[in-house]
Amino acid sequence: MLYMVHMNVEIPADMDKAKADEIKATEKAYSQKLQRDGRWKHLWRIVGEYANVSIFDVASNDELHQLLSGLPLFPYMTITVTPLATHPSAI
Amino acid sequence: MLYMVHMNVEIPADMDKAKADEIKATEKAYSQKLQRDGRWKHLWRIVGEYANVSIFDVASNDELHQLLSGLPLFPYMTITVTPLATHPSAI
Amino acid sequence: MLYMVHMNVEIPADMDKAKADEIKATEKAYSQKLQRDGRWKHLWRIVGEYANVSIFDVASNDELHQLLSGLPLFPYMTITVTPLATHPSAI
Amino acid sequence: MLYMVHMNVEIPADMDKAKADEIKATEKAYSQKLQRDGRWKHLWRIVGEYANVSIFDVASNDELHQLLSGLPLFPYMTITVTPLATHPSAI
Amino acid sequence: MLYMVHMNVEIPADMDKAKADEIKATEKAYSQKLQRDGRWKHLWRIVGEYANVSIFDVASNDELHQLLSGLPLFPYMTITVTPLATHPSAI
Amino acid sequence: MLYMVHMNVEIPADMDKAKADEIKATEKAYSQKLQRDGRWKHLWRIVGEYANVSIFDVASNDELHQLLSGLPLFPYMTITVTPLATHPSAI
Amino acid sequence: MLYMVHMNVEIPADMDKAKADEIKATEKAYSQKLQRDGRWKHLWRIVGEYANVSIFDVASNDELHQLLSGLPLFPYMTITVTPLATHPSAI
Amino acid sequence: MLYMVHMNVEIPADMDKAKADEIKATEKAYSQKLQRDGRWKHLWRIVGEYANVSIFDVASNDELHQLLSGLPLFPYMTITVTPLATHPSAI
Amino acid sequence: MLYMVHMNVEIPADMDKAKADEIKATEKAYSQKLQRDGRWKHLWRIVGEYANVSIFDVASNDELHQLLSGLPLFPYMTITVTPLATHPSAI
Amino acid sequence: MLYMVHMNVEIPADMDKAKADEIKATEKAYSQKLQRDGRWKHLWRIVGEYANVSIFDVASNDELHQLLSGLPLFPYMTITVTPLATHPSAI
Repeated sequence: MLYMVHMNVEIPADMDKAKADEIKATEKAYSQKLQRDGRWKHLWRIVGEYANVSIFDVASNDELHQLLSGLPLFPYMTITVTPLATHPSAI
Repeated sequence: MLYMVHMNVEIPADMDKAKADEIKATEKAYSQKLQRDGRWKHLWRIVGEYANVSIFDVASNDELHQLLSGLPLFPYMTITVTPLATHPSAI
Repeated sequence: MLYMVHMNVEIPADMDKAKADEIKATEKAYSQKLQRDGRWKHLWRIVGEYANVSIFDVASNDELHQLLSGLPLFPYMTITVTPLATHPSAI
Repeated sequence: MLYMVHMNVEIPADMDKAKADEIKATEKAYSQKLQRDGRWKHLWRIVGEYANVSIFDVASNDELHQLLSGLPLFPYMTITVTPLATHPSAI
Repeated sequence: MLYMVHMNVEIPADMDKAKADEIKATEKAYSQKLQRDGRWKHLWRIVGEYANVSIFDVASNDELHQLLSGLPLFPYMTITVTPLATHPSAI
Repeated sequence: MLYMVHMNVEIPADMDKAKADEIKATEKAYSQKLQRDGRWKHLWRIVGEYANVSIFDVASNDELHQLLSGLPLFPYMTITVTPLATHPSAI
Repeated sequence: MLYMVHMNVEIPADMDKAKADEIKATEKAYSQKLQRDGRWKHLWRIVGEYANVSIFDVASNDELHQLLSGLPLFPYMTITVTPLATHPSAI
Repeated sequence: MLYMVHMNVEIPADMDKAKADEIKATEKAYSQKLQRDGRWKHLWRIVGEYANVSIFDVASNDELHQLLSGLPLFPYMTITVTPLATHPSAI
Repeated sequence: MLYMVHMNVEIPADMDKAKADEIKATEKAYSQKLQRDGRWKHLWRIVGEYANVSIFDVASNDELHQLLSGLPLFPYMTITVTPLATHPSAI
Repeated sequence: MLYMVHMNVEIPADMDKAKADEIKATEKAYSQKLQRDGRWKHLWRIVGEYANVSIFDVASNDELHQLLSGLPLFPYMTITVTPLATHPSAI
């Protein structure tokens, strides 16, 4: 079941650089693990922004919330979720 | 080169049904031709809306505008284009 | 799996009254059938508006879109869907 | 008498973790007491957000404000209240 | 129990003048009846707009919706309802 | 001459509690003095928000600005003013 | 007493040209009469828009509403009124 | 003196095709005349929209309004004007 | 050449009071000098807000930007500029 | 391939002045290097704002994101990118 997820990152300007780097590294590993197991199907950067558009493929709303709220950057992101359905013209 | 495209369809309530059906049929054929040649990579319905989210893969801004403005439903849609780049965490 | 759905109805001012009445009657029957089978769990009127807030309980995004796009008033409504998850403090 | 309440939580990034944990624990107990006495009828998490949608069943506007302004997280939330009425098609 | 109600009137430009005049006359009588029985406590015009701000005093959300949806101009208005509570500094 | 005034209070999370309490006490006395002399005609709390809707009755725009900018909480509020006129259907 | 008034004109595309010309001519005479008697102090066109920014000098909210609602183009305009006060740095 | 101008075209769906074609042809000639004399310096299509972004180089606000309000499509466009100044880092 | 300028002041709550007072005094002197030489034609306070509406009369976009960016409060203001033209009905 | 880029700068009020000056100097050099090699074709200041409108000419979405995310002021800017195409009336 597919969802489009828009994530906008807003790390506070006064966060310690070492801490920020550690969160970003953990985020990257977390993200790549989910990409490898097929649940984070697509991940694209929006040009000019510290933001991404992603497509998730999960079994339920609850599973999606568990994945998103577990993101190391979750406390510093504004996330919008759009549920997707099959389009009748899609091949 | 990837772009996310959001299309919202607003066919006038007083359009002749036969005309509307013909436009939709032409739209479907147009869309599937582009899906088959790989330029319209993904096409999803937004749940509860007469709208879609799509991913296009084209060589230039001009090519994308040519494809979108050629859509049979173009006069009846509000389209928003978001250019996408490679995400550093994407695998 | 739960979703909150907001529906705002905008019937064109020049629609024939008999036609409007027929659509509303069909809508009511359609809605009550879904309420009885448990998929349209809650249906509330927003005070002062020709709009409602509903809770749907369905198995998938596709099933929800099929139900919503089949609403007799679908062409005359603006619908917004919010996927819901279990809240950790809910009892 | 029913109301839909949307609560968006924005705890300051620099709040002491122990203090934040204590507020959240008090909030959870406060919420569950109201759920048990039937005034906080439904509590759902919005997928991907630190926010919830709730349904309250209270006797008056004043009672609802007393409950909401007493929430331990009240100073850190943006709350929107929508009064609900019986829908003529509800069964 | 008090509610602030904002009503914005948008009568279609092509409505027959006789019909519009009749609706407005019925609206006026309807409004004054509610003002006299104390449920429509205040009614003010917003300067420069075909809109009003009103204060209603009713027993429930359902009663308010019944009154508002019964307005002769209801099909031609955008209405927003804000529930009010006692302010701790009010005398 | 009447004006509707919407005041939304946003006291900084890190303000010293003693200072905040003092400002609020001064605000309350200031507000009640104006209510008693008839210029602050109505004061209502918006349910679920740290905000109020008020009706002022003053002789001029300048007098209203003098009253509002003198509010002890003025530096911490977002204020919107709507000038009101007599409604032709008001009794 | 001064007010800034923003007027945006939206004449329906299908209005008879003779009727539109007559309304505009009446509007011009009406406006110039008010400019001459000093109540419509300033009238400027917003570059690129069928809109204006104006400054009115009237004795009360009621007088302003009477003037604005009497504009021949009133049914075809969206008007926003901002009450102005003396600025402490104005000379 | 430079201005950025955003023009969004909204031709009514029921306009006669011959009339629309004639307006568009006149618009094109009008635009190219201004481009040739150097006052309409740049004209770009926004990808996916019936809209453009333009740069005008004129002597005054009045001259710009005269050019824009003379556009054959002016009655069918929403125009936004942004005045530009020299950037200190521009070479 | 006239421009309407809207300035909204947002001085950080934690700015040293002496520093704030000095900036405001410099701002006042700066503003009055421009009012005296005729380039800052009008300056009005918006009722209930720490904001103003002004009319500037300058020779070019560049001159206006130079004046506005030189305001002592410039780093603490949100400014919006609207270019004005002669209105055909102005006398 | 052209893109319009809108950049709004928001440097934190408490940033050390020496650090801010250094970032701005690096930004200027970075910007001028790109202007000289032809990829940053136009750079204009928006009158009254700490913001600019720019036109970039690059080979791909990825190249544009690389340039923009490399801006020394990138962490302190809100950037919006609009892809542009050839306009059929452009000469």
